[in-house]
Amino acid sequence: MSPSTVTILKSPPMKGGDDEYSYTKNSTFQKETISIAKEIIDEEIAHKLDIKGLLSATSSSSFRIADLGCSVGPNTFIAMENVIEAVKHKYQSQGLTSQIPEFQVFFNDQDSNDFNTLLRSLPHKSPYFAAGVAGSFHARLFPKSSLHFIHASHALHWLSQVPNEVVDKNSAAWNKGRIFYTTAPEEVRKAYAAQFAKDVEMFLDARAKELVAGGMLVLIIGSFRNGISPSRTLASVLFDILESTLLDMAKEGLISEAQVDSFNLPIYFTSPDEMEHIIEKNGCFKIERTELFNPESVVKATLSGQACTMHFRAGFEGMLGNHFGSEIIDELFYRHSKKAEEFSSRLQASSNEGNQLFLALKRK
Amino acid sequence: MSPSTVTILKSPPMKGGDDEYSYTKNSTFQKETISIAKEIIDEEIAHKLDIKGLLSATSSSSFRIADLGCSVGPNTFIAMENVIEAVKHKYQSQGLTSQIPEFQVFFNDQDSNDFNTLLRSLPHKSPYFAAGVAGSFHARLFPKSSLHFIHASHALHWLSQVPNEVVDKNSAAWNKGRIFYTTAPEEVRKAYAAQFAKDVEMFLDARAKELVAGGMLVLIIGSFRNGISPSRTLASVLFDILESTLLDMAKEGLISEAQVDSFNLPIYFTSPDEMEHIIEKNGCFKIERTELFNPESVVKATLSGQACTMHFRAGFEGMLGNHFGSEIIDELFYRHSKKAEEFSSRLQASSNEGNQLFLALKRK
Repeated sequence: MSPSTVTILKSPPMKGGDDEYSYTKNSTFQKETISIAKEIIDEEIAHKLDIKGLLSATSSSSFRIADLGCSVGPNTFIAMENVIEAVKHKYQSQGLTSQIPEFQVFFNDQDSNDFNTLLRSLPHKSPYFAAGVAGSFHARLFPKSSLHFIHASHALHWLSQVPNEVVDKNSAAWNKGRIFYTTAPEEVRKAYAAQFAKDVEMFLDARAKELVAGGMLVLIIGSFRNGISPSRTLASVLFDILESTLLDMAKEGLISEAQVDSFNLPIYFTSPDEMEHIIEKNGCFKIERTELFNPESVVKATLSGQACTMHFRAGFEGMLGNHFGSEIIDELFYRHSKKAEEFSSRLQASSNEGNQLFLALKRK
Repeated sequence: MSPSTVTILKSPPMKGGDDEYSYTKNSTFQKETISIAKEIIDEEIAHKLDIKGLLSATSSSSFRIADLGCSVGPNTFIAMENVIEAVKHKYQSQGLTSQIPEFQVFFNDQDSNDFNTLLRSLPHKSPYFAAGVAGSFHARLFPKSSLHFIHASHALHWLSQVPNEVVDKNSAAWNKGRIFYTTAPEEVRKAYAAQFAKDVEMFLDARAKELVAGGMLVLIIGSFRNGISPSRTLASVLFDILESTLLDMAKEGLISEAQVDSFNLPIYFTSPDEMEHIIEKNGCFKIERTELFNPESVVKATLSGQACTMHFRAGFEGMLGNHFGSEIIDELFYRHSKKAEEFSSRLQASSNEGNQLFLALKRK
């Protein structure tokens, strides 16, 4: 795909700035994930990444890394420093300290992301040269064979669009009165799954072109154990709370029913089996490692409706405001936090059912 | 210099957004310069750039370009497309159409630049992959040997700081009651010249590391003919108008005298001889071409005090607001435009004395 055909996609960015509802102040969960992922990434870089081969094959004197769906920090800065530390450590442990390359890190998110906040909050003593890249990761973002390592955490569950069928009144997959697929009929789930498979395929095709042979792609993505129903996951319960809140507000006339019918979350959670199947079908990558883990802060978050709501608001305020009008946002999240308290037993029952899927892939 | 020692410098960015006082809407002069520069750049790329050697020496499959001091567009987009067209044309004219590389363009300006506006206004069908890079071009911005072409237009006349001596009451170069050096005593001019030489040296050292051998550095910088006094240039007259406006306002008590004494423009205009001397002393670059030219819009701008003021405001509002307080800005520019009309004969007399210096350098 040439740069000229890159499409601009519509999923909203995390909330910018640094006020009390910002992503910056409400991303503990992502931070904990990064900390768990650090150990696995360290091992993968130590054992699987052929650092010397990577750079000599491209005569490159710098090691180039991209974080896709980076939002505004600080988690992306921590994640990138972790990768760089692991690569440096590998050079040192092989007695190649003098050959440690310079690092360049590309921070990517959609063009509606707050790049001003991102670039102004870069750590002053960062061990890399930084660049911001705006655009959808479902398309090409970088020249071919220009990257050595790509990281995408809490990003790939965003679909490039709501599947067309679920907002089509004439389709069997029309998702009337619901905002998500986990409690919907099978047709709706299939439409979401097909969109996800198509999006991941586009993602992998683009990354396969951008990575040098032997380069590593690390993905951390919302998931659940093979075999369980996605409706049992914490994420599904959280979206049920939102759906129930919106339906209440529609009943009271604060928003319209048609607004609820036409609203669907462009999000999908995959199982390890489903994800591995898509990657194998694509064929460009070797799966080096698959791990499921469950950050403890998820469990803690379910103990407080308020914390749930704050976390949720950081991620969804933009999208909900765009669709329902920003004037109803405070009311919506007030009700959301009350309802989260009502749902506390379901939240707690589901708290161990949501997982993060870690994948380390190597470009063939 | 390692990335960790990059210093954050204080010159203000051009005015962001796209309102009536924005850089976007008040940069005709820069646009005309780019159009004149296009022809020269085309020739230099056609005759002097060894495109095949450049890419094969680095086994790179992409051609990487940086625009330093890019502001928010659209001029930077036009300039970058011009460079890419010229490189593509060279491949085509050599029968190498199938080997045309992919392009990556790095848009750089200080971290206070409006990167959100920049990245959101990227042309949709651009023939390159884009990245934004925040930081001062007086320090390293990119990994070593990672760029093939660097462009910096209307940027290098910004000093990294006001020379310390000119705000030091105990120095012979204290610039009391003035805001610039062109009408000041020799000590002040020397302090400015020394700062400029030091800044350009830092700039060239950084670029020499970032460019591959044979890579090209194109500079377009405010200048004047060898041998004439800088006080005769249009820029100098424009700053005289500002100085006179500020002194009036200090006399009326709208701002304080101390505020005027402590304000000095961190700007310097060089002559071709002076610039060539600095480049030769640095020693990393071969000078391929030197041209002086005078965009016609300068002459036109001098016919209207209002146009002068609008152009001026786009460049200096931020800096003046920071120093004197944003509440006096409208008053200041109202008086500036009145005074520009009073100065119209001096403006017209000086209109052909300001020039743009074009330099094409090649990394040895």
